[in-house]
Amino acid sequence: MKIAVLGTGMVGQALAGRLAELGHEVTVGTRDVAATMERTEPDGMGNPPYAAWAAGRDDLRLAPFAEATADAELIVNATSGGVSLAALTAAGTANLAGKVLLDISNPLDFSRGFPPTLFVKDTDSLGEQIQAAFPDLRVVKALNTLTAALMVHPQQLADGQHTVFVAGNDAGAKKAVTGLLADFGHTDIVDLGDISSARGTEMFLPLWLRLMGSLNTPMFNVKIVR
Amino acid sequence: MKIAVLGTGMVGQALAGRLAELGHEVTVGTRDVAATMERTEPDGMGNPPYAAWAAGRDDLRLAPFAEATADAELIVNATSGGVSLAALTAAGTANLAGKVLLDISNPLDFSRGFPPTLFVKDTDSLGEQIQAAFPDLRVVKALNTLTAALMVHPQQLADGQHTVFVAGNDAGAKKAVTGLLADFGHTDIVDLGDISSARGTEMFLPLWLRLMGSLNTPMFNVKIVR
Repeated sequence: MKIAVLGTGMVGQALAGRLAELGHEVTVGTRDVAATMERTEPDGMGNPPYAAWAAGRDDLRLAPFAEATADAELIVNATSGGVSLAALTAAGTANLAGKVLLDISNPLDFSRGFPPTLFVKDTDSLGEQIQAAFPDLRVVKALNTLTAALMVHPQQLADGQHTVFVAGNDAGAKKAVTGLLADFGHTDIVDLGDISSARGTEMFLPLWLRLMGSLNTPMFNVKIVR
Repeated sequence: MKIAVLGTGMVGQALAGRLAELGHEVTVGTRDVAATMERTEPDGMGNPPYAAWAAGRDDLRLAPFAEATADAELIVNATSGGVSLAALTAAGTANLAGKVLLDISNPLDFSRGFPPTLFVKDTDSLGEQIQAAFPDLRVVKALNTLTAALMVHPQQLADGQHTVFVAGNDAGAKKAVTGLLADFGHTDIVDLGDISSARGTEMFLPLWLRLMGSLNTPMFNVKIVR
């Protein structure tokens, strides 16, 4: 499948690499290709800049948001929550219409330091804001509740015995995303309901961040025991 | 141990019953004893009114908040989040000073219907509000992330292979609460840090509520797989 992965950071790298490994034709989308390729410093978490990570990966193409999404059949939003709406706007409504968006973003606001707060919550969510801004996009919130390495290689932890969630208004889109998650190795995928249930998974982030602090690793996930 | 359980609803009943079963001397605290005993209707969730539930339980005493807490060594806040500060105020600062409070409350606001929203979140929490209002109370947020039956009988589900959390500023108080949780049967108790980490567990409620809807049962819990 032709897939656009928007975002060149840790999450974008993880998704793009794994999707290419699974045989998909992946284009990574960014605001400014030259600026992305010129960056030589690791990000705040110590992850490599895109150019260093992508060196030698001839199966990946880097393109501006609009070009990356133009012929994509499915789009992954792996941008930071604070720029997600801008990135999708730059992609352009015409390039998004009717397509499935796997939305991994979280509305994290680091302006007051760590731990971040949420710039939308409780009565709204970033997933819903994206769906409202692009009504013809078939938004599915998923994978925003665990670290990038486990999003795409869940079997690394407890043989994959843990849970991920999908939330969205379009049953066909949820089926497509669920299929991808299963291809990644996820075995327990809980459908939470319509896109408003993204509120729940986005509001899980403060607990996730505290757990990362207590456990001193991001390599954990929840399992819904029932 | 002499324990006061504030609140006569589902959570108060579960805690009071289990603590008495474990041999503790339990007094249930309420605003108005006569009004509580006169109530004959089940609550909104179909749980029995206190008088029906307590009938024949000679090991439990019902008293106004101040009387219930006066000689208690440990206090459980099992009131609805919206009235928790009022209940503790009615108990009186002198009756709270120096004592451990196991705070189970959640800041749920049902005024706009179901699902409820949170009346405090993200940059503050009900746990912190209680700690700030009663600086001499040793507040430990715990058990607010699962249904009442599983709070006190975790072994009912997957032999207890699931997780609960504690958050609080006082190490001794967290140790006391952790001991009680272990007595209930909890085997995986994660210390999230100071009372500000109550934000994380309170903000988990929206996800919990969506999960209850999707799974069609409250008899589930998270396990932190790591």
